[in-house]
Amino acid sequence: MAPVKVFGSAMSTNVVRVLVCLEEVGAEYEVVNIDFQAKEHKSPEHVARNPFGQIPAFQDGDLFLFESRAIAKYVARKHKSADADLLREGNLNEAAMVDVWTEVEAHQYNPAISPIVYECLVNPAMKGLPTNQKVVDESLDKLKKVLEVYEARLSKTKYLAGDFVSFADLNHFPYTYYFMATPHALVFDSYPHVKVWWESLMSRPSVKKLSANMPTSWP
Amino acid sequence: MAPVKVFGSAMSTNVVRVLVCLEEVGAEYEVVNIDFQAKEHKSPEHVARNPFGQIPAFQDGDLFLFESRAIAKYVARKHKSADADLLREGNLNEAAMVDVWTEVEAHQYNPAISPIVYECLVNPAMKGLPTNQKVVDESLDKLKKVLEVYEARLSKTKYLAGDFVSFADLNHFPYTYYFMATPHALVFDSYPHVKVWWESLMSRPSVKKLSANMPTSWP
Ligand SMILES: N[C@@H](CCC(=O)N[C@@H](CS)C(=O)NCC(=O)O)C(=O)O
Ligand SMILES: N[C@@H](CCC(=O)N[C@@H](CS)C(=O)NCC(=O)O)C(=O)O
Repeated sequence: MAPVKVFGSAMSTNVVRVLVCLEEVGAEYEVVNIDFQAKEHKSPEHVARNPFGQIPAFQDGDLFLFESRAIAKYVARKHKSADADLLREGNLNEAAMVDVWTEVEAHQYNPAISPIVYECLVNPAMKGLPTNQKVVDESLDKLKKVLEVYEARLSKTKYLAGDFVSFADLNHFPYTYYFMATPHALVFDSYPHVKVWWESLMSRPSVKKLSANMPTSWP
Repeated sequence: MAPVKVFGSAMSTNVVRVLVCLEEVGAEYEVVNIDFQAKEHKSPEHVARNPFGQIPAFQDGDLFLFESRAIAKYVARKHKSADADLLREGNLNEAAMVDVWTEVEAHQYNPAISPIVYECLVNPAMKGLPTNQKVVDESLDKLKKVLEVYEARLSKTKYLAGDFVSFADLNHFPYTYYFMATPHALVFDSYPHVKVWWESLMSRPSVKKLSANMPTSWP
């Protein structure tokens, strides 16, 4: 059986969201780079894969998928095993907690942390744009409120959905990894349980392997 | 067994996202109003239910959940039947398509349509604020691009995930319903398959029942 294909750059946050699940479940895959400079993501070939002209897109034989979280869930479901049950759909209450914290990542954490990564890392290093400090400050305020909620949660359970690592935790890896390369990384030091949780994620082989392809500075 | 409780107003979009699933699966439930004017959503009682101090929150016995999409999925999974299988988790490819279009609603459709609803309906009618036309215009442009993708999709399948109604479709009800009461409703006329799809959603008993509690003008 041909390995599945992930279309996009292995350093892009939304692509890594998929790759980390592929690594965790031990699936074979191939990353097909999409050249943003050449606007390849807006080419007819790519728009046929993802009608919004974005990365990632995904192919498994005849099946084409897009939207990083949907792709990642497909991967987790298809390769579910006793060792890697990232969604816990067999248990009503556990699945609900995975969903709650997956939605929290999408609707509370990500909107706070991603503008900081763009303003402090992506825009200056890759686009030569200055950092908009107002956006950074407002986002930091939001992020701190979110981290307070995480600190309370992670002082009760080892991981977000419970005492097991899940899709909800892994989803935090791409943006948090880049955030830790900004001047604001120290914010996490005020939330000791969050810090321990983050370090335990960083020690996972999947995360170690992928972060080797995620540069935090550019020549 | 006590009916489940949904905390929040039955006219609030994110609450309706949950209620429509409860109606579709035929579950008994009680809506417990949360008084926004009195800042009840920021009270210790409510923050214990939803640490972000938002509505909806949800209770099923000992289980407390928040984030509307996570709650709705729990309801769909718990009450899954041959008649109402909103997530299709028993079929790998169908579940993937439900997830794709659920994520599209969250990350493409909602960010385009919700500012129009706030600017044209909620802000003027409920807060006495003027409409910010720039926000409306930019959001309309985004919405049209999204509706083009929907039109192409819905010219191939009856519903978003396939020829079956799913969670992905139902998620579009709350904001689209209010959008249809703005001066921009006619935008949908340019997308005939989208229009037919919307009308088929509007004819569902669940949707008819809930929209009776969703005023589109205020005295
Ligand atoms: N909600 C989408 C977002 C994907 C996304 O924003 N991808 C970016 C790269 S990280 C992209 O392709 N941007 C180009 C564009 O939007 O035109 C997902 O989770 O897959
Ligand atoms: N992502 C959340 C959003 C919930 C939300 O924004 N609720 C609004 C009412 S529609 C609210 O409670 N706003 C008050 C606040 O954020 O303080 C969900 O889907 O449940």
